[in-house]
Amino acid sequence: MRVVNLIQRKRDGGDLAREEINFFLQEYVAGNIPDYQASAFLMAVFFSGLTEQELLDWTESLLSMAPALDLSDLPGPKMGKHSTGGVGDKTSLIVGPLVSCTGITVPIIAGQGLAHTGGTLDKVQSIPGFNTHLKAQEFKEVLRKAGLGIIGQTDDLTPADKKLSSLRDTSGSVESIPLIAISILANELAGGIEGLVVDVKTGSGALVKKMTDSRRLAQTLVSLGKRLGKKVISVITDMDQPLGNAVGNALEVMEAVEAMRGAGPADLVETSLELAARMVSAAQPDRTLESVKEQMFQLLNDGSALQKFRQLIEAQGGNPQIMESFELLPNASAEFVISSPRAGYVSRISADDIGQAVMLLGAGREKMNAHIDAAVGIVLEHKVGDRIQAGERLCTIYYNEEAHLEEASQMVEDAFHISSTQPEARPLIHEIIQ
Amino acid sequence: MRVVNLIQRKRDGGDLAREEINFFLQEYVAGNIPDYQASAFLMAVFFSGLTEQELLDWTESLLSMAPALDLSDLPGPKMGKHSTGGVGDKTSLIVGPLVSCTGITVPIIAGQGLAHTGGTLDKVQSIPGFNTHLKAQEFKEVLRKAGLGIIGQTDDLTPADKKLSSLRDTSGSVESIPLIAISILANELAGGIEGLVVDVKTGSGALVKKMTDSRRLAQTLVSLGKRLGKKVISVITDMDQPLGNAVGNALEVMEAVEAMRGAGPADLVETSLELAARMVSAAQPDRTLESVKEQMFQLLNDGSALQKFRQLIEAQGGNPQIMESFELLPNASAEFVISSPRAGYVSRISADDIGQAVMLLGAGREKMNAHIDAAVGIVLEHKVGDRIQAGERLCTIYYNEEAHLEEASQMVEDAFHISSTQPEARPLIHEIIQ
Repeated sequence: MRVVNLIQRKRDGGDLAREEINFFLQEYVAGNIPDYQASAFLMAVFFSGLTEQELLDWTESLLSMAPALDLSDLPGPKMGKHSTGGVGDKTSLIVGPLVSCTGITVPIIAGQGLAHTGGTLDKVQSIPGFNTHLKAQEFKEVLRKAGLGIIGQTDDLTPADKKLSSLRDTSGSVESIPLIAISILANELAGGIEGLVVDVKTGSGALVKKMTDSRRLAQTLVSLGKRLGKKVISVITDMDQPLGNAVGNALEVMEAVEAMRGAGPADLVETSLELAARMVSAAQPDRTLESVKEQMFQLLNDGSALQKFRQLIEAQGGNPQIMESFELLPNASAEFVISSPRAGYVSRISADDIGQAVMLLGAGREKMNAHIDAAVGIVLEHKVGDRIQAGERLCTIYYNEEAHLEEASQMVEDAFHISSTQPEARPLIHEIIQ
Repeated sequence: MRVVNLIQRKRDGGDLAREEINFFLQEYVAGNIPDYQASAFLMAVFFSGLTEQELLDWTESLLSMAPALDLSDLPGPKMGKHSTGGVGDKTSLIVGPLVSCTGITVPIIAGQGLAHTGGTLDKVQSIPGFNTHLKAQEFKEVLRKAGLGIIGQTDDLTPADKKLSSLRDTSGSVESIPLIAISILANELAGGIEGLVVDVKTGSGALVKKMTDSRRLAQTLVSLGKRLGKKVISVITDMDQPLGNAVGNALEVMEAVEAMRGAGPADLVETSLELAARMVSAAQPDRTLESVKEQMFQLLNDGSALQKFRQLIEAQGGNPQIMESFELLPNASAEFVISSPRAGYVSRISADDIGQAVMLLGAGREKMNAHIDAAVGIVLEHKVGDRIQAGERLCTIYYNEEAHLEEASQMVEDAFHISSTQPEARPLIHEIIQ
């Protein structure tokens, strides 16, 4: 089997057999196929797509390369939660605890933030002592103790996808819908789950920006899940403006804690409750969605989720006192206020630009393994639809280094659009596909 | 400038600025951009194409990386000849001497054969002593002495295209029309020529098989040449069956010599005369095409071309006695005859399959720098349109190793289609674009 023939066939719109996909993936992970052939192949897949059968074969091939976490001796159902990534998206920090309160085990295999979106992994790593570099068995102990846990991609659980995703990041084939779907399922199913809710973001701040593409991704996830014998529910949620008010790693941990104290921004709370309810419903299909939603609302507001979050931090070696004393989290040394140049309505806050600006301040990484500054970020004072006065504060930039402040503040200013008429509201939850 | 952004932009159909193309090519050739980013980028170009401006910028960027051969102190015009490659295509060995007889200097920068097509370089290397590994200045001395010369891609004349072409070969982006056009012009113009005739092959044995694609390539070459200030003429010729009767390196040298003795197969002679006449006409625009064609016919049949070929061999260190004694060339140790299973007309000889079969016998290389067997090959006894009897000889396979003989002979048998009605003749010269 010659790799260049497989590349050409896919490039010219042909199909690949199961053994050809296995050959490519196994030999690539083993280091026998060079990166330059793999990256060209992935780019050909970007353009030519994959058939349903190829999607299945590819995912099963990835899953066959390492044993999934065996959670069968833990009590209760095991459900996963994944987000395709957005700006200000800290829902995992709220949804995980919420769902776990009901006796469902929630293993979260999270990504590092890349490009303009922050990753859940970076957020929890801003908590002093919080260890996400766990071996599979250590992770299982965390799940047994706390009912949930958060780790990154590991060489023992997801060796192949880790290598492929890193290659796609650096060679420009990230935004392929079939490859995104495969990567999500191969990663999450390695966590030993029975079902999965995927928060498919749509809008300017999402990886997949257009609604038609988001819907295609959502549908692909559900149908691929079915063929793999797993219940997958796609919730398409809005990512046209940042979610919540805080953008930046430690700032988002603070906002998640606030939300679990019953004081979170409305969009963050509503999105988190919807995702949590869908996970619980999938695991407890006899209950009505209404009763589940009511329960989620209660668990968020009666301190249960907060208590669960504390258990999570403790189980992973973090300092739980951050929850009472935010000053124990990394805090930026300076702030800079962006004010509105005129009166009117906030008609748009480009999530993309806000994400890029926060990255410029040092909160994101251009390359894998680059150092990030957990303290910096932006806190929005107004969201789309708000009426504002000239000179009123739109947001605050928290920074440590002056180096990129001017460029970042310019981006933030440009991200805010002020108009004279009130904009039409975009829904928070666009569609549920299951 | 981030490479991944350039990849994404081209992938999504955007244009690249001159400095971005320069950046990519220079940094890649300098080794600062890894192969895996370059191969993904080239695959994105395969799908998204290049604008006319990008084509020009790319070619000029390649040409700027090394000084072209300065032939200004040699007398007469300097014209290049290039073929996009086909099975049995030994026209360069005839056209070069023919054109050179008129006082035109003909520097040929030839490719190695890849996939199923043999390269001119491999053919002349079958002549004992013939040295194609010349430095630029040595090549110029050959041109001064013989009026023509043949070398391969070199690090001093075409460093960038050499690296890019090798990457495309192994990562599946060879068949990109803009990249083929750029590669041809960047290579040939490095030879210091004023004009160029490109033999654009079309049909099953060609790199570009479909007539519409061949025409697009031919047009791209001509218009890109114009923008570069060079006269480029594309001659679209047939490559649906092998050209001439011999396929295989030494066998093709023998056939070329026979043709220059006035005993060549009609298709090879007609194609060579057309190409030679177009080159001379471009350099001597005041003459009529008719008179040029007449002159070419004469030079081929009065021994002038043969004499020029002898000078070429001598100038490049080869043994000119091979011209009288073919046994001085590599000869295969065994032969195997393929006969027709039934009476009828030869309706098709798949050039692709013949080329693959000859490669299987050892005449071609799967990888760069692999050893090839110059002696092996196939000599056709019949061509498309011939009427044959059952059991009549179709062709002879010349081989050294039994290993792949069965597979190869099966391919050759399948390459011949015999039908009961005479097929319509395909033209040899499809179109001239200038």
